[in-house]
Amino acid sequence: MNIKAIGFYIGHILRIEGVLLVPALLIALFRHEQSALRAIGITILILMLLSMALLTLGRRGPFWKRRRDAEDSRFGEGIHAREGFVITALGWIVISLFGALPFYLSGVIPGFINCWFETVSGFTTTGATILSEIEALPMSLLYWRSFTHWIGGMGVLVFLLAIIPLSKGNGETFHLLRAESPGPSVGKLTPTMRHTARLLYAIYVALTVIMIGFLLAGGMPLFDSIVHAFATAGTGGFSIKNASIAAYDSHYLQTVIAVFMVLFGVNFNVFYLILCKRASQALRSEELRVYLGILFGATVIIAFNTLPQFSSLGNAFHHSFFQVASIMTTTGFSTVDFNLWPELSRMILVALIIIGACAGSTGGGIKVARAIILWKSLKSEMQRMLRPRTVKVVCMDGKQLDDHVIRGVFAYMTAFIAVCLLSILCISIENYDMETTVTAVLTCIGNVGPGLSIVGPTGNFSHFSTLSKLVLSANMLIGRLEIFPFILLFAPTTWKSRT
Amino acid sequence: MNIKAIGFYIGHILRIEGVLLVPALLIALFRHEQSALRAIGITILILMLLSMALLTLGRRGPFWKRRRDAEDSRFGEGIHAREGFVITALGWIVISLFGALPFYLSGVIPGFINCWFETVSGFTTTGATILSEIEALPMSLLYWRSFTHWIGGMGVLVFLLAIIPLSKGNGETFHLLRAESPGPSVGKLTPTMRHTARLLYAIYVALTVIMIGFLLAGGMPLFDSIVHAFATAGTGGFSIKNASIAAYDSHYLQTVIAVFMVLFGVNFNVFYLILCKRASQALRSEELRVYLGILFGATVIIAFNTLPQFSSLGNAFHHSFFQVASIMTTTGFSTVDFNLWPELSRMILVALIIIGACAGSTGGGIKVARAIILWKSLKSEMQRMLRPRTVKVVCMDGKQLDDHVIRGVFAYMTAFIAVCLLSILCISIENYDMETTVTAVLTCIGNVGPGLSIVGPTGNFSHFSTLSKLVLSANMLIGRLEIFPFILLFAPTTWKSRT
Repeated sequence: MNIKAIGFYIGHILRIEGVLLVPALLIALFRHEQSALRAIGITILILMLLSMALLTLGRRGPFWKRRRDAEDSRFGEGIHAREGFVITALGWIVISLFGALPFYLSGVIPGFINCWFETVSGFTTTGATILSEIEALPMSLLYWRSFTHWIGGMGVLVFLLAIIPLSKGNGETFHLLRAESPGPSVGKLTPTMRHTARLLYAIYVALTVIMIGFLLAGGMPLFDSIVHAFATAGTGGFSIKNASIAAYDSHYLQTVIAVFMVLFGVNFNVFYLILCKRASQALRSEELRVYLGILFGATVIIAFNTLPQFSSLGNAFHHSFFQVASIMTTTGFSTVDFNLWPELSRMILVALIIIGACAGSTGGGIKVARAIILWKSLKSEMQRMLRPRTVKVVCMDGKQLDDHVIRGVFAYMTAFIAVCLLSILCISIENYDMETTVTAVLTCIGNVGPGLSIVGPTGNFSHFSTLSKLVLSANMLIGRLEIFPFILLFAPTTWKSRT
Repeated sequence: MNIKAIGFYIGHILRIEGVLLVPALLIALFRHEQSALRAIGITILILMLLSMALLTLGRRGPFWKRRRDAEDSRFGEGIHAREGFVITALGWIVISLFGALPFYLSGVIPGFINCWFETVSGFTTTGATILSEIEALPMSLLYWRSFTHWIGGMGVLVFLLAIIPLSKGNGETFHLLRAESPGPSVGKLTPTMRHTARLLYAIYVALTVIMIGFLLAGGMPLFDSIVHAFATAGTGGFSIKNASIAAYDSHYLQTVIAVFMVLFGVNFNVFYLILCKRASQALRSEELRVYLGILFGATVIIAFNTLPQFSSLGNAFHHSFFQVASIMTTTGFSTVDFNLWPELSRMILVALIIIGACAGSTGGGIKVARAIILWKSLKSEMQRMLRPRTVKVVCMDGKQLDDHVIRGVFAYMTAFIAVCLLSILCISIENYDMETTVTAVLTCIGNVGPGLSIVGPTGNFSHFSTLSKLVLSANMLIGRLEIFPFILLFAPTTWKSRT
């Protein structure tokens, strides 16, 4: 295990987090939010000191003396699959730990475990909250809370790789990108990983800015537009209103948010292909079609199922579309209390929590691509049962799927079920009803946010015990990092020296 | 598709069912149960006529003219994997259809759909009932109801293969035995399939008789002992008392039943090995150890979790052991209303419903062996992620597992989840709570019987709509036949002529 390289990357991650806290610091400064200002300032100081220490301990010399040059890349080259998993998992734990400090030091959220839960929920783009009075938070911390969604959506390491030439080699950074990116496989958009990372962020920023424009055009205040665009882009779901998006009683604004949720749930490869004027290829993507098909089907069924609760069919379709988009993209905004919907609609939402958005998007869940691969492998396996001598390959978008991709998907599903079962048993110690217990775990591991019953859209996670909050925040990290980096971080075999 | 061979086997199955109804007929005769006598008589008549027609249509001549000879075997030889699946799925549907007739014709259960549900629940050894007044049934029909458990436990085709030399070849009958036997693979106990089938039934009969003896020794009436031994041996769960086993307020009787439930949940290979005086090999079985380990662990946790509800720790352990054994072996008897237990205990029971008993036992669920294979494959896949160049094989009981066994287990799990999700959506149309909806599906596909909430141990399935009853009975058949025979029966590709 290349401990130095790990320290080096973690140092970089801390430094970036310090920089990312600056906008919140400025808001606190201009708004004269004293306690928030102090808390954010101290956090930035700690982050800078720690990152310097880590980078120095890695015998790299203090960062102001170093230049971005070939020297740096030596450490990037020590990254194999193991280090990739460890850096990713550890990096996410570390940014959440320090990202929680502003909430803790300012005293706006009582207890460190609550601050940790809220920050993990932010970075993992879950959007589950322990706050009942969101609007009481100072503006700077509301900004930071929503900004964590935006950072977490595309990934911290992707960001790191996009801005810093840490490695000359492509294979090493691949291990990092692979460990952090959602979906069964990282699509290689461009030949080098760094370009891929930059391109992803460029699309991400552009879409976010466009969304802010649309929200402003609908009369949403600037600050509200920015934070809601952050939460939508990251498919997070933190709102700055207690009533979530229901607070904006405008069908235009709600529709804009719904449409952008759907867009951010799409595989970013699709946008890249459209940019390259290969739109027809983009629209032939099987995952995109299935994703839109499920969105459409679920919207129609729920609209008719919930019709008695709305004044008109149009209204039913509006809220059904918003809620389906919000849950399937794992954002978690709400315009109505879907906990009060009929059981069929609620169970469809639970199914969407599990399926989630497209691979390569900012959304969570098991991903549509995985569901398609599972379905196709199942079909091919059944063919084999009927006619043992026939060999049928599994294809997606016209390309044959490698055996190790299919094995990886199966392993993922097995691990997913095992983690869910174990977590449900842990949460059930609380003695809540089954709806609360099961959907709390599913919504956290799916990075959605709201569940049903007590953790429904009007509820929150403040009632849970410390143990449960730890389990649920672990679920969020496990879900965001697609299970394995997090499990492998704690597996003794990862740390054994044999290579 | 070899339609003739299918007709030939179905004809045989109907004939056997007619014969198996004779004891119930005799009971009706001696007890002067007029309506039951007429109903059973008519059913036997229909079965005999139909089986003759089918066997004649298969150009075999009426059965009384035929001899068990080489001529028969010609049809057995046309059985490939496809025919194996179709015969098995169709056979189970057909015996359930005709097995429901005595209930329907006698009028003791209103509506054919209810009779069908009850009979499917019987043959699949589920034990879910739509009856609220079980004790009102005539004795002959109570006997038939429990006897379906016993027949279904070991399997109708296994029975057929045990008594009739349908095929000289071994490969053909293998397809039938494989399609009907629970677990990832049929252990070849003896070189020929017919001997395997006979041996399985010999062990089954012996254990059932021993159990009847133990129950009689505890003062249980003869009839009660027989029917409860049937329900235990098949891991079914139908009782002839409204209060299930709680009606027998004897720790001895309850313990006998619990111990035999555990025994019938064990892989029958273990008993075979013990008979062959290879007990040490039998006890080294990984599946047996994990099975007993889970039983023990769950019993201990639940005993302490439910302690406040019992008068003593001993009592808590007694009922905890009974309930864990009952649910994990997928029998479904109850001595207490575990629906009132704390959430942790209830969730453990739900987890046990999913895991189920050992492969090659009469129990249902996904089977302990599959859980072990999933766990080991997951571990090996994680090893591969860390060290891509290391090849690690998955072993069980010291033997390397074939790749197609592992693929089969993954395919099974995928299909299991898909069927569960779809069924839950169908049942949720009823608008019951999530506990009822989810556990009704899980308990039916796991062939357990009781679930939680409305379908808890004191409840029943009578409230469900016709659609839900059809879905749940399909779940029972899907669970008993391990998913694929039933799905493939309805897949168009199965019926295409290309081989």
